Amino acid sequence: MDERTILLDALRQRRSIRKFTDEALTNDEILAVLEAGRWAPSGMNNQPWRFLVLRSGDERCEALAGLTKYSHVLRGGDTLFVVLLDKAAMYSPRKDYQGAGACIQNMLLAIHGLGLGAVWLGEIINQEAEVLPALGLDADAYELMTVIVAGHPAQKGSSDRKPLSELLLEKI
Amino acid sequence: MDERTILLDALRQRRSIRKFTDEALTNDEILAVLEAGRWAPSGMNNQPWRFLVLRSGDERCEALAGLTKYSHVLRGGDTLFVVLLDKAAMYSPRKDYQGAGACIQNMLLAIHGLGLGAVWLGEIINQEAEVLPALGLDADAYELMTVIVAGHPAQKGSSDRKPLSELLLEKI
Repeated sequence: MDERTILLDALRQRRSIRKFTDEALTNDEILAVLEAGRWAPSGMNNQPWRFLVLRSGDERCEALAGLTKYSHVLRGGDTLFVVLLDKAAMYSPRKDYQGAGACIQNMLLAIHGLGLGAVWLGEIINQEAEVLPALGLDADAYELMTVIVAGHPAQKGSSDRKPLSELLLEKI
Repeated sequence: MDERTILLDALRQRRSIRKFTDEALTNDEILAVLEAGRWAPSGMNNQPWRFLVLRSGDERCEALAGLTKYSHVLRGGDTLFVVLLDKAAMYSPRKDYQGAGACIQNMLLAIHGLGLGAVWLGEIINQEAEVLPALGLDADAYELMTVIVAGHPAQKGSSDRKPLSELLLEKI
């Protein structure tokens, strides 16, 4: 396969993974995921994202598991990538949330590219007011964007999408 | 290069491109970009994004050029990908903006992977109240997320990012 095919396939074929083996991520893998997030685009290149990495066994993982209805998924993962916005670095909520989304997507794609799996937990940010103190973080300083649960996949994952015809406001 | 290297390199090496040649995008390229956006993840898989594609010569391109301080960039591109949220499909502004960011990033990565170039215009959404009517769109029905200006690159692009040590809240 040529380079273009490999990239376009990855964009289409990445899926949420919610079941994991016990195998741990290596430090190199964790760094590669963070590196991908770091290079995401942001408005005014303000790079408002901040990262906290929790490895299996960190007692804060269990605290987070108590703050989501997806505790079984969170407990099954090896590594949690907590993605936050630094409020002091933000300039527009709408654009900074978009930037966070680009950052998270880069991280998910890197995880996929490494042969690992992950799920973007959205529901847990509903409990932001409890999650930040559980992580020892000042709620005045950070906004919680997601917790990415990552590990070695124990399932293939499946999903579907609306056909392009429903997304296009005009035929091309 | 192996598949992992190709994907990780693309995530790091994509840059904003603001100067373009006159060469047009093919229909297949435009479809590949939309396909990448379509497969982005979204909260509850609600897929709130909608697309409008404006080709060079469409009079609406010139209308948009009058609504951004980056008119020279917009006029230089071949194809505009207008990304919107369908308000009726939204469920949480913060999560839907994140999803839009993931969608836009997938589109930018596809453009990069195709050997094309693009820039994510953020500033133009400040003029959303004028942009939507200029596109014939109901401002009660849609939110403008960005206009991606795409074409064949006439520059390499350059940028930088904060070191990982400034983004990590704790050493890993």
